[in-house]
Amino acid sequence: MNVIVDLCVVPMGVGVSVSRYVAACQRVLQEAGLDHTLHAYGTNIEGEWDAVFAAVKTCHETIHRMGAPRIATTLKIGTRVDRHQTMADKIQSVAEKLDVQG
Amino acid sequence: MNVIVDLCVVPMGVGVSVSRYVAACQRVLQEAGLDHTLHAYGTNIEGEWDAVFAAVKTCHETIHRMGAPRIATTLKIGTRVDRHQTMADKIQSVAEKLDVQG
Amino acid sequence: MNVIVDLCVVPMGVGVSVSRYVAACQRVLQEAGLDHTLHAYGTNIEGEWDAVFAAVKTCHETIHRMGAPRIATTLKIGTRVDRHQTMADKIQSVAEKLDVQG
Amino acid sequence: MNVIVDLCVVPMGVGVSVSRYVAACQRVLQEAGLDHTLHAYGTNIEGEWDAVFAAVKTCHETIHRMGAPRIATTLKIGTRVDRHQTMADKIQSVAEKLDVQG
Repeated sequence: MNVIVDLCVVPMGVGVSVSRYVAACQRVLQEAGLDHTLHAYGTNIEGEWDAVFAAVKTCHETIHRMGAPRIATTLKIGTRVDRHQTMADKIQSVAEKLDVQG
Repeated sequence: MNVIVDLCVVPMGVGVSVSRYVAACQRVLQEAGLDHTLHAYGTNIEGEWDAVFAAVKTCHETIHRMGAPRIATTLKIGTRVDRHQTMADKIQSVAEKLDVQG
Repeated sequence: MNVIVDLCVVPMGVGVSVSRYVAACQRVLQEAGLDHTLHAYGTNIEGEWDAVFAAVKTCHETIHRMGAPRIATTLKIGTRVDRHQTMADKIQSVAEKLDVQG
Repeated sequence: MNVIVDLCVVPMGVGVSVSRYVAACQRVLQEAGLDHTLHAYGTNIEGEWDAVFAAVKTCHETIHRMGAPRIATTLKIGTRVDRHQTMADKIQSVAEKLDVQG
């Protein structure tokens, strides 16, 4: 089952600057070979369910190992079985509606 | 690694009434033997990471098998390595502050 | 427009124990006269859109005033115009399916 | 109070294809004069609290008026009072850590 998720990790107990933890997650996703795109409030990830969720677990383990005692993550999870749709497809689909009606 | 999550599944393409899909997820969690509590906007679940995420996957598979072509889930994921904290502990901790200061 | 939300505030830069901030938000909701129910991973709130969102803003202002320099909140927002549905209705609807099919 | 949010609207009861509703929200944000960036699983928005939340409300009203009887939205809300940080700052901050450590 293919999945598109949006991952937003919030390390707690390590102050207000958390970009080095987010950067560590980017490397986890890179090493996992998963398509991913960072945005200003999370990271879009696309792939097989098991591979994506293994990477999410590794992100939590990595952030804890870096010293964060607590993590509050918000994960949006999208699956569909009617047809295959990539992250690029989703953006393209909205863009087309804007062009036509805009 | 213990985890507390808040699972909110939104089946798409099946109309506005989705309670039978939510009920099916309750049975998945029940059969998985995971502590869980339904609230008005999701379900709190507590357990070992792998067991909890296996159940989340089974929920998606079950909802698709029931006929929903698309699912948009929001999952909050909390882990902490400084100490063990149950779902009941979290509520108790807030309740104590309300008693003292309220 | 009536709305049911699920509010989960995560104060950052104040350590790992955040229950006193959550308790402060409970008092904000109480004073606003909004129906609300705390669970282990957030608070369900029900009311008129403007009243609910004024309270969410007051929660952020209150937490900042208590000393948290940064807040990461996750808010689920549900509206429907086909019929009125309370928080209790939503839980009841799932419970009925469990009774019948369980 | 400045805020960065991530808005993800899920219209229910209108089938599986929801891009025209997402496109309508893009126009709402455009007309509101708010900085916003669409990604594959939501839209980042930046601005004054009241302006951003007025736009979120207009999005819900617009989607209902287009015919969707029910909407399930997930909104991440970030505020900080220690310093001003834009959406571009957040991405830049992670990118710098990746350059240095990558």
